[in-house]
Amino acid sequence: MTPIIALLTDYGLEGPYVGALKGAILSINPQATIVDLTHLVAPGDVLHGAFLLASASAPFPVGTLYVAVVDPGVGTSRRPIALQTERGIFVGPDNGLFSHVLGGARRGRAMRKGTAPRLHPLQQGQRAVHLQEPRFWRQPVSRTFHGRDIFAPVAAHLSLGVPLDALGSGTDEVLAFSLPRAVVAKGGGIRGEVISADRFGNLITCIREEDLPTGAVRVEIAGNSIAGLSRSYAEGGGLLAIIGGGGLLEVALMNGSAAEALGAGVGTEVRVAWGRRGQRAGDH
Amino acid sequence: MTPIIALLTDYGLEGPYVGALKGAILSINPQATIVDLTHLVAPGDVLHGAFLLASASAPFPVGTLYVAVVDPGVGTSRRPIALQTERGIFVGPDNGLFSHVLGGARRGRAMRKGTAPRLHPLQQGQRAVHLQEPRFWRQPVSRTFHGRDIFAPVAAHLSLGVPLDALGSGTDEVLAFSLPRAVVAKGGGIRGEVISADRFGNLITCIREEDLPTGAVRVEIAGNSIAGLSRSYAEGGGLLAIIGGGGLLEVALMNGSAAEALGAGVGTEVRVAWGRRGQRAGDH
Amino acid sequence: MTPIIALLTDYGLEGPYVGALKGAILSINPQATIVDLTHLVAPGDVLHGAFLLASASAPFPVGTLYVAVVDPGVGTSRRPIALQTERGIFVGPDNGLFSHVLGGARRGRAMRKGTAPRLHPLQQGQRAVHLQEPRFWRQPVSRTFHGRDIFAPVAAHLSLGVPLDALGSGTDEVLAFSLPRAVVAKGGGIRGEVISADRFGNLITCIREEDLPTGAVRVEIAGNSIAGLSRSYAEGGGLLAIIGGGGLLEVALMNGSAAEALGAGVGTEVRVAWGRRGQRAGDH
Repeated sequence: MTPIIALLTDYGLEGPYVGALKGAILSINPQATIVDLTHLVAPGDVLHGAFLLASASAPFPVGTLYVAVVDPGVGTSRRPIALQTERGIFVGPDNGLFSHVLGGARRGRAMRKGTAPRLHPLQQGQRAVHLQEPRFWRQPVSRTFHGRDIFAPVAAHLSLGVPLDALGSGTDEVLAFSLPRAVVAKGGGIRGEVISADRFGNLITCIREEDLPTGAVRVEIAGNSIAGLSRSYAEGGGLLAIIGGGGLLEVALMNGSAAEALGAGVGTEVRVAWGRRGQRAGDH
Repeated sequence: MTPIIALLTDYGLEGPYVGALKGAILSINPQATIVDLTHLVAPGDVLHGAFLLASASAPFPVGTLYVAVVDPGVGTSRRPIALQTERGIFVGPDNGLFSHVLGGARRGRAMRKGTAPRLHPLQQGQRAVHLQEPRFWRQPVSRTFHGRDIFAPVAAHLSLGVPLDALGSGTDEVLAFSLPRAVVAKGGGIRGEVISADRFGNLITCIREEDLPTGAVRVEIAGNSIAGLSRSYAEGGGLLAIIGGGGLLEVALMNGSAAEALGAGVGTEVRVAWGRRGQRAGDH
Repeated sequence: MTPIIALLTDYGLEGPYVGALKGAILSINPQATIVDLTHLVAPGDVLHGAFLLASASAPFPVGTLYVAVVDPGVGTSRRPIALQTERGIFVGPDNGLFSHVLGGARRGRAMRKGTAPRLHPLQQGQRAVHLQEPRFWRQPVSRTFHGRDIFAPVAAHLSLGVPLDALGSGTDEVLAFSLPRAVVAKGGGIRGEVISADRFGNLITCIREEDLPTGAVRVEIAGNSIAGLSRSYAEGGGLLAIIGGGGLLEVALMNGSAAEALGAGVGTEVRVAWGRRGQRAGDH
């Protein structure tokens, strides 16, 4: 059976680019099973694309192939790569887009806007190649559309059984962002930040369930204090905190948008304190 | 051959949720044929989701599996169910989302905003189970993402041949909304309401073709009177009434948006009168 | 193996129409491989739909089937057709939507808004039929949804091996727009116009790479002058001109939207001059 090829881009859905990407795959492997993750990454937002790629790809079967293209540097000297992890093979630009799927990259501090990705050594079980074999590309290669001309064809060839090593020369490091993570806050508790806001206005933070104590907590964001964690979006009433589907702390508003109500978004600071003033909202 | 799995949600397309849903299916049945109906149901709008589910699913082959998730009560005690009808099996929350595909539910009066769904007995040829067998779910089950953790895995198992009865205990009733339908108007004729507005600004009403007399009619909406039914969007000029692709009366504006021009939308009242003042627009 | 069926419409993604279209195909050929090109053509914008269809379909394998529906005249006497070219078979309304894939149609002058398509003789290797055999349609045929009722079923039957000729009577001419193309400008150089603006705000023009001289050029648009062609979106800084993925001259803004910055869009005039004042931006 031919592996699944899953796609994530910032191409948008109103233009011809996503269709062309699929055509480029199907012209090499007409039997390919193509799945869209999302094509609505904000234009050029590599860091958020990296988060979405990890979130959306997590449930896929091991061995899935990914074409991920958020690539403001297309046509420059940034490297095209294919990165193999325990989960599958990721094909795209070496610009930090694979930061979250690398796993070990999760050791940074709060991100500052515009922070550049840095070279990151691969971990055990990971391999990467610098794509350098034009015979696996669509010809001629354009200056602006390497998704169609390089990344999609490479994934299609991988789906047909071409080995990773045939695609270029191995590399031990790829670029990765220093990702935001929970840190100990002055005065106790931890602090982190919002790393994504979803369609519902839920604010997803970098604080993981395992970062929290088992006892009662109090979540502080944008001048609001939320007592305890809720067991669902529909309980607790008003603003609430909950562990979301990715195991990360979320702030949500029942029947509304927390992002809008709080004027909060990516980068907003979140603090978690613990102690007697924190109660689970569900315990009221 | 493995059955088709069709998806309808309010997850939006900019986040990781739709991709994750597909991954959860493909990790169980990598051969599944997955089709998107829509993922742009307005957040939490169960009633409109119910209409879209029925409209989009109607042409699918008998035996299709559906995962439908508009689920503001995720994580509460609302039941996860699988509902088998003559058309296929629908998997999702028991919150009224299957009102339109139940068929017999179509016996209400005009909906009032906020009307709650009520228990509705299944009809002949319909069966439902309360999903209670965690061995067919993705583990661990999150508090917020039952689409990925319960509904998608259950549909994937169904696609592999797991029988409905293995998924939980049978139930004779599911929740359904009392759906808007045409009623006799005071002073003659009928009245109903707009139940959906599409991308073109066409206003789809709850009035069915078979509710109309065979003679000439006059359609009244938002202070406007439309004489007769048109045979196409491009004839009749200006505001027109037409029987749409779902067999429902629509109000449209040639080369424009009726919704915008009339300031009308879901819930707007529509009346149909008949008699000598009504003429088919195409007869002019 | 069953051929790919690729879809392009102006149906939008929030309604039931795209799902229903797919259901209509799958109810005839449950094994069909369906691929979305785009469903976000602006409502009724046949000319732009024609451009997107050609751009998105170009990389697909020969023999692909296309269902293309931007059809403001649905239900009128406009003909439903199936058009075979060297690339595949295109099914949809005969209203100019196939202008770009016809190839030979590219001989017009600058388009004026509202210009109607005209009959265009087919070229060698092209065939077309006027769809007239209701036995290959979904019954009953609605007045408003020929995508679901005629075009999708016809494509599904083609995918099962029904020959083109069985679908209706042959025709030697189809409607095509006179497409914008580069022309010699008064005072030297060439002029053309913007024919599409993409999600990134890049302005794609009708000027082809082969219309340009090999030497240095200067691109003028909306009062701005751009010296030379860039080799990537990320070099040259600010406003830049580049040959895009379709071989057409584009105007882009590094890290921004050229469309917004210039107040430009479809129809904006673009001039290219050559001579000593033109330098490649990358040569600075």
